[in-house]
Amino acid sequence: MRILGFDPGLERIGVGVIDKEGSRITPVFYGLIQTPRISLPERLSILHEEALSLLETHRPDTVATERLLFTVNKTTAMDVSKALGVLLLAVSRLHLPWAEYSPPEIKQSVVGNGAADKRQVQFMVAKLLGLPAAPKPDDVADALAIAICHAFRGGKMGG
Amino acid sequence: MRILGFDPGLERIGVGVIDKEGSRITPVFYGLIQTPRISLPERLSILHEEALSLLETHRPDTVATERLLFTVNKTTAMDVSKALGVLLLAVSRLHLPWAEYSPPEIKQSVVGNGAADKRQVQFMVAKLLGLPAAPKPDDVADALAIAICHAFRGGKMGG
Repeated sequence: MRILGFDPGLERIGVGVIDKEGSRITPVFYGLIQTPRISLPERLSILHEEALSLLETHRPDTVATERLLFTVNKTTAMDVSKALGVLLLAVSRLHLPWAEYSPPEIKQSVVGNGAADKRQVQFMVAKLLGLPAAPKPDDVADALAIAICHAFRGGKMGG
Repeated sequence: MRILGFDPGLERIGVGVIDKEGSRITPVFYGLIQTPRISLPERLSILHEEALSLLETHRPDTVATERLLFTVNKTTAMDVSKALGVLLLAVSRLHLPWAEYSPPEIKQSVVGNGAADKRQVQFMVAKLLGLPAAPKPDDVADALAIAICHAFRGGKMGG
């Protein structure tokens, strides 16, 4: 089963694709979508097209995203939500099942500790995928962590 | 000039279209997009398609939306933001200019009082558009108020 994880954002969106065969997971692709600081509708359009293109290229069986929690910056949370809206629209275009996980759920799955720090998550992402180091920037490692979480939880078909 | 106003939401999205000729404004269309309680990606897809269809039918010159403010329910604000994301994607598809206004800006434009209550806004929407009463539900009257605000502010091309 192929799993694609998105780490949602408006400016930078992490993407991680892994294959799961039995208990074995292997990296397929990881990278970053970046959007220019243009008008919001055009920016969302670029993000949507890039996401669609990645989904069409890598043909995942299922997609997972991080559940957005409320942080200090409310404006950021709402902008990231708009971006997540057009990512999910791309998921819907390809009729893919989708699941979302909270940050503690992702940490629990990847590190075995829902309160693990960023470095521990990155260390385990590299280790589990047989990479020499966790990909940079953090958004990319986070996207892989989301995909790994979905793999470990059975890649259940959410929605 | 034709102006389309969206009152953003995930379950119910108000739509109001008006024409502005000189200082005169007239109603063209008003109604509600409603989305069923299905999976979020499919729901956003329905909303996007409906918005696109309305934009293609009424061919506005410009689109205005209400700026989302943070209220009591954070989950709602984030769901409405996702919905706004796919509305703005539809706006971008047709390469339309877009502006957004805060609730006090809309009330100030329509009633002359940024702290006006809902009934005053509805009263003035009906009066300004020559309607016997403000359309129901509130989302529809709100969408017309957003369009009127954009008309009174010169329908400036934001983005």
